[in-house]
Amino acid sequence: MAKIALFRTGRRVCYGAVEGSQIVEIQGDIFGKFRLTSRRHELSEVKLLAPTSPRTCIGGPGINYRSHVEFASKMTGRPVKVPALPTPWRKGENCFIGPEEAIVIPKNSTGDVHFEGELVVVIGKQCRHATEANAMQFVFGYTCGNDVSEREWQRTDFNFWRAKGSDTFAPVGPWIATDVDPNNLELEVRLNGKVMQKANTSELIHGIPIIIQTVSQAITLLPGDLIFTGTPGTTEAMKPGDIVEVELSGIGVLRNPVVAET
Amino acid sequence: MAKIALFRTGRRVCYGAVEGSQIVEIQGDIFGKFRLTSRRHELSEVKLLAPTSPRTCIGGPGINYRSHVEFASKMTGRPVKVPALPTPWRKGENCFIGPEEAIVIPKNSTGDVHFEGELVVVIGKQCRHATEANAMQFVFGYTCGNDVSEREWQRTDFNFWRAKGSDTFAPVGPWIATDVDPNNLELEVRLNGKVMQKANTSELIHGIPIIIQTVSQAITLLPGDLIFTGTPGTTEAMKPGDIVEVELSGIGVLRNPVVAET
Repeated sequence: MAKIALFRTGRRVCYGAVEGSQIVEIQGDIFGKFRLTSRRHELSEVKLLAPTSPRTCIGGPGINYRSHVEFASKMTGRPVKVPALPTPWRKGENCFIGPEEAIVIPKNSTGDVHFEGELVVVIGKQCRHATEANAMQFVFGYTCGNDVSEREWQRTDFNFWRAKGSDTFAPVGPWIATDVDPNNLELEVRLNGKVMQKANTSELIHGIPIIIQTVSQAITLLPGDLIFTGTPGTTEAMKPGDIVEVELSGIGVLRNPVVAET
Repeated sequence: MAKIALFRTGRRVCYGAVEGSQIVEIQGDIFGKFRLTSRRHELSEVKLLAPTSPRTCIGGPGINYRSHVEFASKMTGRPVKVPALPTPWRKGENCFIGPEEAIVIPKNSTGDVHFEGELVVVIGKQCRHATEANAMQFVFGYTCGNDVSEREWQRTDFNFWRAKGSDTFAPVGPWIATDVDPNNLELEVRLNGKVMQKANTSELIHGIPIIIQTVSQAITLLPGDLIFTGTPGTTEAMKPGDIVEVELSGIGVLRNPVVAET
């Protein structure tokens, strides 16, 4: 199976396998036993949802692309070093939205709300004390993520609880790709069609195995849990009316409009 | 209704109302429509569970009792000030355990794992942009919590992801008390029967309304979400074999053994 999406059709929510312009309903547990059914829909006629509801979502190591170091130093106003090991933190379940859902700029924010395009790892098996050597066997697949970040709160708050944890600050999707090489994916972020971030996941400083090893030393990861892997280069503020797209080659395009909170 | 517990009896998990030494099964949604049934159990014959599975759990404001300031300064090695507003952070769903479940000292920790007894607020209604004036109408009740903290990780890590977020680091229970005055509860923490922390919730620096107002500016709170409110005084390391109890007058006693990870 290659691309697995969670979708709503009428009142039902189910997983399906994406085949060209269609989606085929899956019966069963995508992380366990399942089968393809004969029920097909046009992709254009269903509503894609955030592909999982993670118990745990780990934010990408603060600095995981060398191309992001200079920007991060300028943004935080202090010299940023690449940490020797991944530095996890938590994103909340309240943050998750799916493709085409709106990123909402909170009304009490400064408006300095940036995109951060990232590769997101989807865990497939329960996992505690994984090692760098066996970590990849716990991975189910990959999706695109946008680690939306309110920069003023990021600079001044005690931690990321709202800077990266406000409602709608974690668009993910459009689906989970299970058969891609995560070490060689082209990442591109576009704001209103203009390319803003561009990198290849081969540039990740801390690779997926060491991130999973680090996190699972303290946290039992479960099927559907998500791990963001960090963002490259430079980011900018999004404004109401903007369209932001995070594309990863071999996975797809995660597209979200931006609105102001009313 | 006064005390509501989540419990397992045989293979079933349900809510019940605690009446003396018995528990009466509840049918329906405790946050919505429900009724008491005629099914009764002896409390001693059921297994109490963590009373909710929160989508969001907010850690107590780092400093919310003046009696904790001196200890916090000594512990972190830098002068700690009382923040002007509450400083929320996230505890993960992987942390939650119920009464009598074991707090596990992670095998790769330094062993400097402390109790932190706290009053925990249980949210009862969906809530965004609450104000200090209307915040209390979103509260369902209160329970006891232990914000277990690995002090070395707390000092050296970028954030609290594992210092306060490792598996089993959030015992909560034994049940939710709905009819108590949260501003006048005696809090007592005992380690192997010896009193280690003692305070009254009237000493909270940031009260429950301002904490809910602050959190709900960025996060939609849902029924069952939990908010820890901070710990008083001085804490110490727990060792395998210890028994830690967090008691709040009018609520009850949350009792947990401590074990080493194997």
